[in-house]
Amino acid sequence: MEERVIKRLAEIVGPASVLESEEERLCHSYDATRRSALPDVVVRPQSTEQVAAVARLCTEEKIPLTPRGAGTGLSGGSVPVERGIVMSLTRMNRVREMAIEDLYAICEAGVVTQDFQKTAEEVSLFYPPDPASQNCCTIGGNVATAAGGMRCLKYGVTKNYLMGLEAVLPTGETIKTGARTVKSVVGFDLTRLMCGSEGTLAVVTAAILRLIPKPEHAETILAGFDGVEQAAAASAAVTAGGLTPAALELMDALSVSAVLRDASSQGLLAGEVGRAFGGAREGALLLAETDGFKEAAEHEAAAVEAVLKKAGARFVKRSSDGAEREALWEARRGVLAGLAKLKPITILEDATVPRSRIVEMVRAVGAVAARHGLTVAVFGHAGDGNLHPTILVDAPLEGRARDVRAAVSEMFDAALALGGTVSGEHGIGIDKAPFLRSEVGEAAFEIMRQLKKVFDPEGILNPGKLLV
Amino acid sequence: MEERVIKRLAEIVGPASVLESEEERLCHSYDATRRSALPDVVVRPQSTEQVAAVARLCTEEKIPLTPRGAGTGLSGGSVPVERGIVMSLTRMNRVREMAIEDLYAICEAGVVTQDFQKTAEEVSLFYPPDPASQNCCTIGGNVATAAGGMRCLKYGVTKNYLMGLEAVLPTGETIKTGARTVKSVVGFDLTRLMCGSEGTLAVVTAAILRLIPKPEHAETILAGFDGVEQAAAASAAVTAGGLTPAALELMDALSVSAVLRDASSQGLLAGEVGRAFGGAREGALLLAETDGFKEAAEHEAAAVEAVLKKAGARFVKRSSDGAEREALWEARRGVLAGLAKLKPITILEDATVPRSRIVEMVRAVGAVAARHGLTVAVFGHAGDGNLHPTILVDAPLEGRARDVRAAVSEMFDAALALGGTVSGEHGIGIDKAPFLRSEVGEAAFEIMRQLKKVFDPEGILNPGKLLV
Repeated sequence: MEERVIKRLAEIVGPASVLESEEERLCHSYDATRRSALPDVVVRPQSTEQVAAVARLCTEEKIPLTPRGAGTGLSGGSVPVERGIVMSLTRMNRVREMAIEDLYAICEAGVVTQDFQKTAEEVSLFYPPDPASQNCCTIGGNVATAAGGMRCLKYGVTKNYLMGLEAVLPTGETIKTGARTVKSVVGFDLTRLMCGSEGTLAVVTAAILRLIPKPEHAETILAGFDGVEQAAAASAAVTAGGLTPAALELMDALSVSAVLRDASSQGLLAGEVGRAFGGAREGALLLAETDGFKEAAEHEAAAVEAVLKKAGARFVKRSSDGAEREALWEARRGVLAGLAKLKPITILEDATVPRSRIVEMVRAVGAVAARHGLTVAVFGHAGDGNLHPTILVDAPLEGRARDVRAAVSEMFDAALALGGTVSGEHGIGIDKAPFLRSEVGEAAFEIMRQLKKVFDPEGILNPGKLLV
Repeated sequence: MEERVIKRLAEIVGPASVLESEEERLCHSYDATRRSALPDVVVRPQSTEQVAAVARLCTEEKIPLTPRGAGTGLSGGSVPVERGIVMSLTRMNRVREMAIEDLYAICEAGVVTQDFQKTAEEVSLFYPPDPASQNCCTIGGNVATAAGGMRCLKYGVTKNYLMGLEAVLPTGETIKTGARTVKSVVGFDLTRLMCGSEGTLAVVTAAILRLIPKPEHAETILAGFDGVEQAAAASAAVTAGGLTPAALELMDALSVSAVLRDASSQGLLAGEVGRAFGGAREGALLLAETDGFKEAAEHEAAAVEAVLKKAGARFVKRSSDGAEREALWEARRGVLAGLAKLKPITILEDATVPRSRIVEMVRAVGAVAARHGLTVAVFGHAGDGNLHPTILVDAPLEGRARDVRAAVSEMFDAALALGGTVSGEHGIGIDKAPFLRSEVGEAAFEIMRQLKKVFDPEGILNPGKLLV
């Protein structure tokens, strides 16, 4: 990066917020995939004005600008593949407004999702979107990827909680979209167009987020099955049976054993699973939660239990104890980290199918794994038809690279053949860019390319992503 | 319209589906506002292929093409102000797929909303969006306007139930957006960009609609207050109190009396209101509904009742009887028709404010009415902060036109000053086009203009609307 540009950046954000060291650039080079690319420089603005000034500079100088939250993305979306400037939004972390009676908040992009959830809960409100990385990921990243999570089954994804955005265009102009009202139809929906656009259209600096009253009670249900297909079938039976639990999660035997190896998540889960499976661990688990008014949560939990038992559950256990419930959900959130400790390379996929087809999808994943002699764990949001098949490989990858590529491609083919999609919630980024055009079709792809040009005619924003 | 074009149209849709008579053109000239404009010809395609061929012809010949559902819009969106072709989608009225276990359906644009709701209910599913015109409006029109309704408070608007679209571009190319999965992040969100775009970007021919399990029980609550401000305050107290009824509707004295004059909606409402207000009719009503599991709906209804009583309700009556509940909701849906019988000209507005500000908004509307000596009824979705102040004027309007224009403009100013928006759910169309630019700002307006050009470079689709 030219000294002249570094000097301009330092004038805009202050010298301490321009990071040039190899270490800092490395820290901002990767996301939660295996991808990484070293930026030329990292800037950490503290205000929308600073973001705007940096964007203007990048446009003038035609420098690639890659916005970044906590770097927990799962498709390479924040990896600066064309170098240039990485803009970390983590210092813009104020909750600007908490409108308790109006049930919304205005959050800056760098607010950590879980911190915001806690802030909401302190005033008896609830922000449902809960990506598994919620303890470190940011609202800006959640908006950029339209992040999902476990509670999406009942409550919907980040997009469903967006009322409006503040965003900086590559020209440095700041736009405010949407409204502080829960209903608003005022021109084209730029809010939802930018949500999920992975920082390729504008830099989101703040969001108006819808809140709902905090459910007064929750019940967590853990059920064990002989195998992953039985568990998947039970999940489909729950959603087809007129029940909408807040969450309905699947973990296959490998996922469960990965979590059990992690000392922190032993306890209740280990005891129950150990007893039920007698150490064989060939089974699978479903973890469900119902919530709402106490009577309703209990009523629905009983109905879910009945369906699970009828679907052949080996055991069903229910808990309304806060600590016990949290331990179970912490275990579920720990699956990916647990799997990553089993093998040095984990390739997490996100193929999603209509809910009733997940048994077929689980079967297809098993067939793909067998065909290529690969170890594939299956876990995820079964109730939404959104599974995360995860390929576990020894390092170095080279020897298996062709098998892995083929396996990933065959899993996508299977999802599409079942009426599904290549990405339920992780987005396109780099990893799925080769599959985008064939899923959306030529005409829609061309529209998307032109929309990109409207927002970013010079192509400086997060280049090499999504539309390539 | 040139004979040559008429001939081509007849080849595409069949001669019987090309309507040229004055009567037919008149029937397709207006919507539910006072606006109307005569098209040159009306076509009624029966398939996506026919829609595509007509669109291609219009692009070749640069003929304005205005898509139209049932013409129940409230902002002039389907009025063919630049003449040309009106394309009525009402004959594309098949439910193509009803995926019961997967909780979605694929509906053609011309399916009547209430017919679809009934089809869903027959298989114990639920399609919540319920614009007051549901017995005749269409899914395509609902998508084009992102239509709301009464149950949006708990369930959200049409946009929240859209999983994907089939749409025809002006070139005649057909795109399919979204997926049959409840979660999908595959490129830019063209689905929600087209939703609410009022037929200016593409002709929506079908929609993948999310369904949810039908709530097993509902309770309707009718409460009377001394005046509209007290009722508005009570509504804000309900939503601020951690309660989210399915619906929470306000009717002022004039709205109630308009409904009572309509014989069909007498009965329970007349009896209750008559008794409570002793004929004085200076009060106002709130009508609320809670639903879900029986225990939950009853529990929440009791909680809503308690808040309403504490907020000074003169009477609170609750019913879970199907016929009685339906009569009350039919009465609420009949407000606009009732008002239209009081005076020949009704100008219905849609200003929306954050929920806690509706008392101030109601007061502002009263002040505007007094200032200009106008009669203004206030009713609407109080729980969402979405009111419909309705100006009632004698015909001809001419003498009062300046007062009416000023009053409308002042009501919008009041909504914006309270942190609100000029349109909660009726859209921009012709009526609010002059206010769009100032609400969204110059930069966002320019982005919208360019997005329009991406989809419709020749500007043939519904010209003269939204962005003018």
